[in-house]
Amino acid sequence: MRSNESLLELLLELQVLDRIPRSGFVLRGVAEPESVTEHCWHVLFMVWALGERVPGVDVTRAVEIALVHDLAELRVGDLPRTAARYLPAGAKNVAETAAVGEVLAPLPERARRLYAEYQEGVTLESRLVKACDKLQLMLKVAVYEGWGSGALAEFWETPDTSPAPGIAAVDELFAELRARRKPAAGR
Amino acid sequence: MRSNESLLELLLELQVLDRIPRSGFVLRGVAEPESVTEHCWHVLFMVWALGERVPGVDVTRAVEIALVHDLAELRVGDLPRTAARYLPAGAKNVAETAAVGEVLAPLPERARRLYAEYQEGVTLESRLVKACDKLQLMLKVAVYEGWGSGALAEFWETPDTSPAPGIAAVDELFAELRARRKPAAGR
Amino acid sequence: MRSNESLLELLLELQVLDRIPRSGFVLRGVAEPESVTEHCWHVLFMVWALGERVPGVDVTRAVEIALVHDLAELRVGDLPRTAARYLPAGAKNVAETAAVGEVLAPLPERARRLYAEYQEGVTLESRLVKACDKLQLMLKVAVYEGWGSGALAEFWETPDTSPAPGIAAVDELFAELRARRKPAAGR
Amino acid sequence: MRSNESLLELLLELQVLDRIPRSGFVLRGVAEPESVTEHCWHVLFMVWALGERVPGVDVTRAVEIALVHDLAELRVGDLPRTAARYLPAGAKNVAETAAVGEVLAPLPERARRLYAEYQEGVTLESRLVKACDKLQLMLKVAVYEGWGSGALAEFWETPDTSPAPGIAAVDELFAELRARRKPAAGR
Amino acid sequence: MRSNESLLELLLELQVLDRIPRSGFVLRGVAEPESVTEHCWHVLFMVWALGERVPGVDVTRAVEIALVHDLAELRVGDLPRTAARYLPAGAKNVAETAAVGEVLAPLPERARRLYAEYQEGVTLESRLVKACDKLQLMLKVAVYEGWGSGALAEFWETPDTSPAPGIAAVDELFAELRARRKPAAGR
Amino acid sequence: MRSNESLLELLLELQVLDRIPRSGFVLRGVAEPESVTEHCWHVLFMVWALGERVPGVDVTRAVEIALVHDLAELRVGDLPRTAARYLPAGAKNVAETAAVGEVLAPLPERARRLYAEYQEGVTLESRLVKACDKLQLMLKVAVYEGWGSGALAEFWETPDTSPAPGIAAVDELFAELRARRKPAAGR
Repeated sequence: MRSNESLLELLLELQVLDRIPRSGFVLRGVAEPESVTEHCWHVLFMVWALGERVPGVDVTRAVEIALVHDLAELRVGDLPRTAARYLPAGAKNVAETAAVGEVLAPLPERARRLYAEYQEGVTLESRLVKACDKLQLMLKVAVYEGWGSGALAEFWETPDTSPAPGIAAVDELFAELRARRKPAAGR
Repeated sequence: MRSNESLLELLLELQVLDRIPRSGFVLRGVAEPESVTEHCWHVLFMVWALGERVPGVDVTRAVEIALVHDLAELRVGDLPRTAARYLPAGAKNVAETAAVGEVLAPLPERARRLYAEYQEGVTLESRLVKACDKLQLMLKVAVYEGWGSGALAEFWETPDTSPAPGIAAVDELFAELRARRKPAAGR
Repeated sequence: MRSNESLLELLLELQVLDRIPRSGFVLRGVAEPESVTEHCWHVLFMVWALGERVPGVDVTRAVEIALVHDLAELRVGDLPRTAARYLPAGAKNVAETAAVGEVLAPLPERARRLYAEYQEGVTLESRLVKACDKLQLMLKVAVYEGWGSGALAEFWETPDTSPAPGIAAVDELFAELRARRKPAAGR
Repeated sequence: MRSNESLLELLLELQVLDRIPRSGFVLRGVAEPESVTEHCWHVLFMVWALGERVPGVDVTRAVEIALVHDLAELRVGDLPRTAARYLPAGAKNVAETAAVGEVLAPLPERARRLYAEYQEGVTLESRLVKACDKLQLMLKVAVYEGWGSGALAEFWETPDTSPAPGIAAVDELFAELRARRKPAAGR
Repeated sequence: MRSNESLLELLLELQVLDRIPRSGFVLRGVAEPESVTEHCWHVLFMVWALGERVPGVDVTRAVEIALVHDLAELRVGDLPRTAARYLPAGAKNVAETAAVGEVLAPLPERARRLYAEYQEGVTLESRLVKACDKLQLMLKVAVYEGWGSGALAEFWETPDTSPAPGIAAVDELFAELRARRKPAAGR
Repeated sequence: MRSNESLLELLLELQVLDRIPRSGFVLRGVAEPESVTEHCWHVLFMVWALGERVPGVDVTRAVEIALVHDLAELRVGDLPRTAARYLPAGAKNVAETAAVGEVLAPLPERARRLYAEYQEGVTLESRLVKACDKLQLMLKVAVYEGWGSGALAEFWETPDTSPAPGIAAVDELFAELRARRKPAAGR
């Protein structure tokens, strides 16, 4: 499997993203967990819906970044959180960039630049996508907990699943979500 | 279940879209068929990737239309193709518009207008989404046929699964997809 | 898909009912929820087992009504409870009657009359099937709650999931079921 | 697990029948195969629909036999066809009768007699159920073959999956089903 | 299906063991329960890992016994615990021995002797496998309970799911597992 | 997640291996593909069954190597074949060794040495496991092809899925498997 050579090849390969389950949920016993594709759609929707609440953000570009932000998983897999600890520093990012480069080969250079922007995580747009990436995780955790599915409590205590503070609109939603969980957390 | 009253409520409800399988595949025996969320993501990606090949289209708005185009299924279900025949003329559209109105209630009016634009199907942007909606169906059909999953041959013969002609970029991709199927079709 | 033209066609179409999951459970996160076929079998068994406790009922006809009572879902889908709110008054019933008419076309007229009797819900037999339809829902809710699967508490509080009072044998079973849940409800 | 002590206990136990997949399909690689409950419903429908074509049969009783014919699987499991070869002659029937006796304990004696009638297989009604039990198997085989699911060809060649000749209405349907398969069989 | 005639036939048949779910979990509502193959691997690993803690045991032979201990399920199915009550005394063992004999036919006589040793349960090696067979069950019960999946509490109270006392290394692990459950058991 | 601190912790973590599907099958559309645990069991059985046909091999140690050969996947995931291309040379092996070290921490040093022996692939025992690892893949491919599940033809043409020549007993089985496929390959 090398670089895609046509848009059709690319579109066909993307269909497979549906079959890659999110490893964080798989490893914690959620039955029928969301796929990477489903995660991607929700992140994208959140970026779009929150955009108007984030002063100065270019929503259109943020949406585009969300669209490509997880495509490496097609070829690298959805590495469990633990995997990064065992790989050389930076190796995951290098691998993902190379994979996305070959997946998106039939698209103009701009598509790969959006992915690079996400990896760098400097611009407001990429930071918004990263924050929504984590917020979506916690939204799904809340939903699965409501369904009684999986052992997910640890997610609420791990700093790296909290959206990095700084984007107020996301911080507020996360606080609201956490507050909502309180009563149930009394179990 | 009434109108969503906050963005958080809306985002939580959207997570459920992942559990609604696409009825066309369910009824034709595909194992583990795509969800409505997955379909939505692929349509959106196609609209974005094809946008630059469609003269005069406003890609940003087309992407936004794609984002909302199937949200009615959260509350109305993914009606099988046959259902429309048994409902009064226009009832499906009316129901879907009402459902989307309540789902998207926490968002600005503009979000509902995008859905109305899709239902009307007059603008180039909405026509592009509709064409991609059908093209994505056939892409998935091709993928599932390659996997030996489901009885899907009829899709290739039904006019209402062909993207309506008129948007050259979509027509070309569909022709390429159909041509690719040829050898296998000899079975 | 039009009217079935032979008994064999009908029997083959019915096999697909197994793949239609019950939407109420899907939307509330039950993993591997029952199919419409499974629901149908349980309702039928209950009607038969309860029949001797219902003075004056014609059990044979009630069983036959149970046998056809959900066949519309083959062509209309298992509409979520919310769907009815968005459709014109009566449209769901009209659609279901038309669908059942075409599904059961190869059988004598009597089969369609049984479905009409169910839709009208006037005779004791049809009321028994409707009551068992709801009681079976709550039995399954109780089973899934015992298995820790899905967010189902709301079912116990919604009047339209309680069997309509009036058929003592069903009322008693429902009261027994509800009583049994008590201890667990203390959670 | 002993004899059920109330109708409610019985009805709750029956819900579990949905989770027992038909072993013949499991062992031959069908994805998401039908459950025992689904099989039971289809056999029952066939008995009812074919009844009027079988001279002299008491359809009501035949339907009742179909309703109980597979309930032993709740406690004995859906033994694969091969299991019988390894058990002492008659042991499977004895075990099934004992299991059904305890499952149906809260119902009047008549319910167990219906099961005994099925096991003996002498009356026209029990022979009709047995013939439909096999015909339903082959209907499902045909459906799964159409879906490309599982390695099922051997079923068409094994005498013990053919409905025993003698009930013309079933023989005819089976012949029609077999004829329909012909073109595909050329593969 | 008779005796396997070549090693290749045997290896192909074994692949099917993956599709046989463990009936104890199926009947108690665990979603996506472990397969017999998975159970077998875990028992084997435990026997190996515990071996050095069991004075006088021949670990290599114990591992071999673990490897064959559940192969009868390929042809007899994974009989639910209740099934044994309905079968004549000893019939299950006789059937399983016959089935394993035919499955393993292409291997040297020694393979069948290992299975006989397991059935007899006299040697230290076979007793270690039997103890691990039960301990693995309870490990999985603990995992599924942590995931909120299934109604499994009864397993902790049934004597026949406790590893028979006598092998200290297993007793200790079981005590440790049971102690770990305590806090959660307060629910 | 750090090093396991007790045997119980290790055994509990291992249960999760059942939920990790083999990525090669996932990406090629096999429904309900085998888990890593299932793969591990089959490789182990093959090593054991073939051992006596491989002159000079220490079967006991080869079985032990098979037992640990895939445990890294618990923490690194089942990387798709393509992933290795994007990672720095050797990074995958380093990561896997570190992961296995932490997983197996409660066991004596010898357990980690068995894994190192596998990674090095020099001894006859480790080469036998590697050859069986590939042969098992192709056995499963053959089974899935027989079931009509997935797009797997490419596996037969890729050199790196052929067991490396040199171990005659494996070469012969692979040749036999390939020959058996011939007639079907005419499709």
